[in-house]
Amino acid sequence: MLLRPATPLGKSDRVNKPQKVNLQDKLALFAEHWSPKAVGRLNDYEIKVVKLQGEFVWHTHEDTDELFLVIDGRLTIQLRDQDVELGPGEMFVVPRGVEHCPKADGQVAALLIEPEGVVNTGDAGGALTATPESLV
Amino acid sequence: MLLRPATPLGKSDRVNKPQKVNLQDKLALFAEHWSPKAVGRLNDYEIKVVKLQGEFVWHTHEDTDELFLVIDGRLTIQLRDQDVELGPGEMFVVPRGVEHCPKADGQVAALLIEPEGVVNTGDAGGALTATPESLV
Repeated sequence: MLLRPATPLGKSDRVNKPQKVNLQDKLALFAEHWSPKAVGRLNDYEIKVVKLQGEFVWHTHEDTDELFLVIDGRLTIQLRDQDVELGPGEMFVVPRGVEHCPKADGQVAALLIEPEGVVNTGDAGGALTATPESLV
Repeated sequence: MLLRPATPLGKSDRVNKPQKVNLQDKLALFAEHWSPKAVGRLNDYEIKVVKLQGEFVWHTHEDTDELFLVIDGRLTIQLRDQDVELGPGEMFVVPRGVEHCPKADGQVAALLIEPEGVVNTGDAGGALTATPESLV
Protein backbone atom coordinates (compact mmCIF):
# COMPACT_ATOMS: atom_id res chain seq x y z
CA MET A 1 0.00 0.00 0.00
CA LEU A 2 1.33 3.41 -0.91
CA LEU A 3 1.09 6.14 1.64
CA ARG A 4 0.11 9.46 0.25
CA PRO A 5 2.37 12.11 1.77
CA ALA A 6 0.75 15.09 3.38
CA THR A 7 0.87 18.23 1.27
CA PRO A 8 3.66 20.46 2.56
CA LEU A 9 2.17 23.51 4.21
CA GLY A 10 4.20 25.93 2.10
CA LYS A 11 3.02 24.44 -1.15
CA SER A 12 -0.60 24.43 -0.05
CA ASP A 13 -0.27 28.09 0.88
CA ARG A 14 1.09 28.98 -2.53
CA VAL A 15 -1.73 27.24 -4.34
CA ASN A 16 -4.54 28.74 -2.31
CA LYS A 17 -3.50 32.31 -1.69
CA PRO A 18 -3.67 35.01 -4.34
CA GLN A 19 -0.18 35.88 -5.53
CA LYS A 20 1.50 39.04 -6.70
CA VAL A 21 2.86 39.16 -10.24
CA ASN A 22 6.30 40.53 -11.11
CA LEU A 23 6.01 41.53 -14.76
CA GLN A 24 9.73 41.17 -15.55
CA ASP A 25 9.77 37.69 -14.00
CA LYS A 26 6.91 36.66 -16.27
CA LEU A 27 8.56 38.21 -19.34
CA ALA A 28 11.72 36.19 -18.61
CA LEU A 29 9.77 32.95 -19.09
CA PHE A 30 9.35 33.21 -22.85
CA ALA A 31 10.98 34.65 -25.96
CA GLU A 32 8.47 34.48 -28.80
CA HIS A 33 6.86 37.57 -30.29
CA TRP A 34 3.15 38.35 -30.83
CA SER A 35 2.07 35.61 -28.44
CA PRO A 36 0.38 37.14 -25.37
CA LYS A 37 0.62 35.22 -22.08
CA ALA A 38 -2.00 35.57 -19.36
CA VAL A 39 -0.54 36.62 -16.01
CA GLY A 40 -3.71 37.46 -14.13
CA ARG A 41 -7.44 38.09 -14.19
CA LEU A 42 -9.56 41.06 -13.21
CA ASN A 43 -13.17 39.89 -13.11
CA ASP A 44 -13.76 38.70 -16.70
CA TYR A 45 -10.74 40.54 -18.10
CA GLU A 46 -7.38 38.95 -18.82
CA ILE A 47 -4.11 40.67 -17.96
CA LYS A 48 -1.40 39.58 -20.36
CA VAL A 49 2.24 40.29 -21.12
CA VAL A 50 3.54 40.16 -24.65
CA LYS A 51 6.80 40.66 -26.56
CA LEU A 52 6.53 42.45 -29.89
CA GLN A 53 9.01 42.95 -32.72
CA GLY A 54 8.38 43.88 -36.32
CA GLU A 55 4.97 44.73 -37.73
CA PHE A 56 1.74 42.95 -36.80
CA VAL A 57 -1.37 42.82 -39.00
CA TRP A 58 -4.04 45.49 -39.43
CA HIS A 59 -7.11 44.41 -37.49
CA THR A 60 -10.12 45.61 -35.54
CA HIS A 61 -11.82 44.46 -32.33
CA GLU A 62 -15.44 45.34 -33.00
CA ASP A 63 -16.71 44.65 -29.49
CA THR A 64 -14.05 45.89 -27.13
CA ASP A 65 -11.43 48.48 -26.31
CA GLU A 66 -7.86 47.18 -25.87
CA LEU A 67 -5.27 48.56 -23.45
CA PHE A 68 -1.54 48.63 -24.27
CA LEU A 69 0.95 49.67 -21.57
CA VAL A 70 4.58 49.63 -22.66
CA ILE A 71 7.03 48.12 -20.16
CA ASP A 72 10.24 48.14 -22.24
CA GLY A 73 11.12 49.47 -25.69
CA ARG A 74 9.30 51.73 -28.11
CA LEU A 75 6.00 50.74 -29.71
CA THR A 76 4.13 52.42 -32.54
CA ILE A 77 0.41 51.75 -32.68
CA GLN A 78 -0.53 52.64 -36.23
CA LEU A 79 -4.08 53.89 -36.71
CA ARG A 80 -5.44 54.88 -40.11
CA ASP A 81 -5.26 58.59 -39.22
CA GLN A 82 -2.28 58.78 -36.86
CA ASP A 83 0.67 56.90 -35.38
CA VAL A 84 0.72 56.67 -31.58
CA GLU A 85 4.29 56.36 -30.27
CA LEU A 86 4.66 54.75 -26.84
CA GLY A 87 7.68 54.41 -24.57
CA PRO A 88 7.99 52.76 -21.16
CA GLY A 89 5.29 53.94 -18.75
CA GLU A 90 3.03 55.09 -21.56
CA MET A 91 -0.32 53.54 -22.36
CA PHE A 92 -2.93 53.76 -25.07
CA VAL A 93 -6.43 52.39 -25.25
CA VAL A 94 -7.42 51.43 -28.79
CA PRO A 95 -11.15 52.20 -28.97
CA ARG A 96 -13.46 49.42 -30.08
CA GLY A 97 -14.00 49.39 -33.81
CA VAL A 98 -10.79 51.29 -34.60
CA GLU A 99 -8.47 49.54 -37.04
CA HIS A 100 -4.91 49.36 -35.75
CA CYS A 101 -1.55 47.73 -36.41
CA PRO A 102 1.22 47.61 -33.78
CA LYS A 103 4.79 47.99 -35.01
CA ALA A 104 8.10 47.77 -33.17
CA ASP A 105 11.51 48.39 -34.71
CA GLY A 106 13.28 46.89 -31.70
CA GLN A 107 11.86 44.45 -29.16
CA VAL A 108 9.02 45.74 -27.01
CA ALA A 109 7.53 44.29 -23.84
CA ALA A 110 3.99 45.38 -23.06
CA LEU A 111 1.06 44.73 -20.77
CA LEU A 112 -2.29 44.08 -22.46
CA ILE A 113 -5.69 44.15 -20.80
CA GLU A 114 -8.84 43.09 -22.60
CA PRO A 115 -11.86 40.85 -21.97
CA GLU A 116 -11.28 37.12 -21.80
CA GLY A 117 -11.50 35.44 -25.18
CA VAL A 118 -10.39 38.36 -27.36
CA VAL A 119 -8.39 37.06 -30.33
CA ASN A 120 -5.13 38.93 -30.91
CA THR A 121 -5.70 39.37 -34.64
CA GLY A 122 -9.31 40.52 -34.19
CA ASP A 123 -11.28 40.36 -37.45
CA ALA A 124 -8.17 39.74 -39.56
CA GLY A 125 -7.23 36.19 -38.52
CA GLY A 126 -4.25 34.68 -40.32
CA ALA A 127 -0.89 33.20 -39.40
CA LEU A 128 -0.25 35.53 -36.46
CA THR A 129 -3.37 34.41 -34.60
CA ALA A 130 -2.13 33.09 -31.24
CA THR A 131 -3.70 30.69 -28.79
CA PRO A 132 -3.30 32.45 -25.45
CA GLU A 133 -1.19 30.58 -22.92
CA SER A 134 -1.25 31.11 -19.19
CA LEU A 135 1.72 31.92 -16.96
CA VAL A 136 -0.46 32.13 -13.85
CA MET B 1 -21.79 91.09 -36.19
CA LEU B 2 -19.18 88.83 -34.64
CA LEU B 3 -17.38 86.43 -36.85
CA ARG B 4 -16.84 83.04 -35.33
CA PRO B 5 -13.25 82.00 -35.94
CA ALA B 6 -12.63 78.63 -37.48
CA THR B 7 -11.43 76.02 -35.02
CA PRO B 8 -7.66 75.63 -35.40
CA LEU B 9 -6.96 72.28 -36.99
CA GLY B 10 -4.46 71.24 -34.32
CA LYS B 11 -6.88 71.84 -31.47
CA SER B 12 -9.68 69.98 -33.21
CA ASP B 13 -7.34 67.06 -33.76
CA ARG B 14 -6.42 66.91 -30.11
CA VAL B 15 -10.03 66.88 -28.99
CA ASN B 16 -11.20 64.22 -31.39
CA LYS B 17 -8.35 61.74 -31.58
CA PRO B 18 -7.67 59.20 -28.86
CA GLN B 19 -4.53 60.17 -26.95
CA LYS B 20 -1.75 58.21 -25.31
CA VAL B 21 -1.24 58.60 -21.55
CA ASN B 22 2.17 59.11 -19.96
CA LEU B 23 1.69 57.90 -16.39
CA GLN B 24 4.49 60.04 -14.89
CA ASP B 25 3.09 63.15 -16.59
CA LYS B 26 -0.29 62.47 -15.00
CA LEU B 27 1.27 61.82 -11.58
CA ALA B 28 3.05 65.17 -11.78
CA LEU B 29 -0.31 66.96 -11.88
CA PHE B 30 -1.30 66.32 -8.26
CA ALA B 31 0.18 65.75 -4.82
CA GLU B 32 -2.57 64.45 -2.54
CA HIS B 33 -2.67 60.91 -1.24
CA TRP B 34 -5.49 58.33 -1.40
CA SER B 35 -7.31 60.29 -4.11
CA PRO B 36 -7.35 58.29 -7.35
CA LYS B 37 -7.46 60.23 -10.64
CA ALA B 38 -8.95 58.75 -13.79
CA VAL B 39 -6.53 58.78 -16.73
CA GLY B 40 -8.39 56.55 -19.15
CA ARG B 41 -11.23 54.13 -19.79
CA LEU B 42 -11.31 50.55 -21.02
CA ASN B 43 -14.92 49.74 -21.89
CA ASP B 44 -16.73 50.29 -18.56
CA TYR B 45 -13.54 50.14 -16.49
CA GLU B 46 -11.66 53.17 -15.21
CA ILE B 47 -7.88 53.38 -15.31
CA LYS B 48 -6.61 55.55 -12.48
CA VAL B 49 -3.35 56.71 -11.00
CA VAL B 50 -3.02 57.30 -7.28
CA LYS B 51 -0.42 58.41 -4.73
CA LEU B 52 -0.41 56.55 -1.44
CA GLN B 53 1.36 57.22 1.84
CA GLY B 54 0.60 55.90 5.31
CA GLU B 55 -2.13 53.38 6.07
CA PHE B 56 -5.55 53.32 4.40
CA VAL B 57 -8.66 51.76 5.93
CA TRP B 58 -9.65 48.08 5.97
CA HIS B 59 -12.39 47.58 3.41
CA THR B 60 -13.94 45.15 0.96
CA HIS B 61 -15.29 45.44 -2.57
CA GLU B 62 -18.03 42.83 -2.58
CA ASP B 63 -18.75 42.97 -6.31
CA THR B 64 -15.41 43.38 -8.03
CA ASP B 65 -11.74 42.50 -8.16
CA GLU B 66 -9.31 45.44 -7.96
CA LEU B 67 -5.96 45.67 -9.75
CA PHE B 68 -2.95 47.45 -8.20
CA LEU B 69 0.21 47.95 -10.29
CA VAL B 70 3.01 49.77 -8.50
CA ILE B 71 4.81 52.43 -10.55
CA ASP B 72 7.11 53.92 -7.86
CA GLY B 73 7.83 53.03 -4.24
CA ARG B 74 6.96 50.03 -2.12
CA LEU B 75 3.36 49.15 -1.25
CA THR B 76 2.07 46.59 1.23
CA ILE B 77 -1.41 45.29 0.59
CA GLN B 78 -2.46 43.87 3.92
CA LEU B 79 -4.92 40.97 3.76
CA ARG B 80 -6.24 39.24 6.88
CA ASP B 81 -4.05 36.19 6.25
CA GLN B 82 -0.98 37.65 4.53
CA ASP B 83 0.86 40.83 3.57
CA VAL B 84 1.54 41.28 -0.16
CA GLU B 85 4.64 43.42 -0.74
CA LEU B 86 4.82 45.16 -4.11
CA GLY B 87 7.65 47.11 -5.74
CA PRO B 88 7.76 48.87 -9.13
CA GLY B 89 6.56 46.63 -11.94
CA GLU B 90 4.68 44.33 -9.58
CA MET B 91 0.92 43.95 -9.56
CA PHE B 92 -1.70 42.29 -7.40
CA VAL B 93 -5.37 41.70 -8.00
CA VAL B 94 -7.38 41.84 -4.79
CA PRO B 95 -10.17 39.29 -5.31
CA ARG B 96 -13.73 40.47 -4.83
CA GLY B 97 -14.96 40.01 -1.29
CA VAL B 98 -11.46 39.95 0.23
CA GLU B 99 -10.87 42.49 2.97
CA HIS B 100 -7.70 44.50 2.41
CA CYS B 101 -5.84 47.57 3.63
CA PRO B 102 -3.05 49.21 1.60
CA LYS B 103 -0.09 50.62 3.55
CA ALA B 104 2.94 52.57 2.38
CA ASP B 105 5.82 53.68 4.61
CA GLY B 106 7.14 56.04 1.92
CA GLN B 107 5.24 57.54 -0.99
CA VAL B 108 3.92 55.12 -3.58
CA ALA B 109 2.57 55.80 -7.06
CA ALA B 110 0.29 53.12 -8.46
CA LEU B 111 -2.04 52.32 -11.31
CA LEU B 112 -5.52 51.10 -10.36
CA ILE B 113 -8.02 49.43 -12.67
CA GLU B 114 -11.57 48.66 -11.59
CA PRO B 115 -15.10 49.09 -12.92
CA GLU B 116 -16.45 52.61 -13.17
CA GLY B 117 -18.16 53.77 -9.99
CA VAL B 118 -16.19 51.69 -7.48
CA VAL B 119 -15.75 53.66 -4.26
CA ASN B 120 -12.18 53.66 -2.95
CA THR B 121 -13.18 52.79 0.63
CA GLY B 122 -15.55 50.01 -0.47
CA ASP B 123 -17.94 48.99 2.31
CA ALA B 124 -16.05 50.96 4.96
CA GLY B 125 -16.83 54.55 3.93
CA GLY B 126 -15.47 57.28 6.20
CA ALA B 127 -13.19 60.26 5.89
CA LEU B 128 -10.89 58.74 3.26
CA THR B 129 -13.71 58.23 0.78
CA ALA B 130 -12.68 60.19 -2.33
CA THR B 131 -14.71 61.58 -5.18
CA PRO B 132 -12.83 60.46 -8.27
CA GLU B 133 -11.48 63.28 -10.43
CA SER B 134 -10.54 62.97 -14.07
CA LEU B 135 -7.21 63.90 -15.62
CA VAL B 136 -8.31 62.77 -19.06
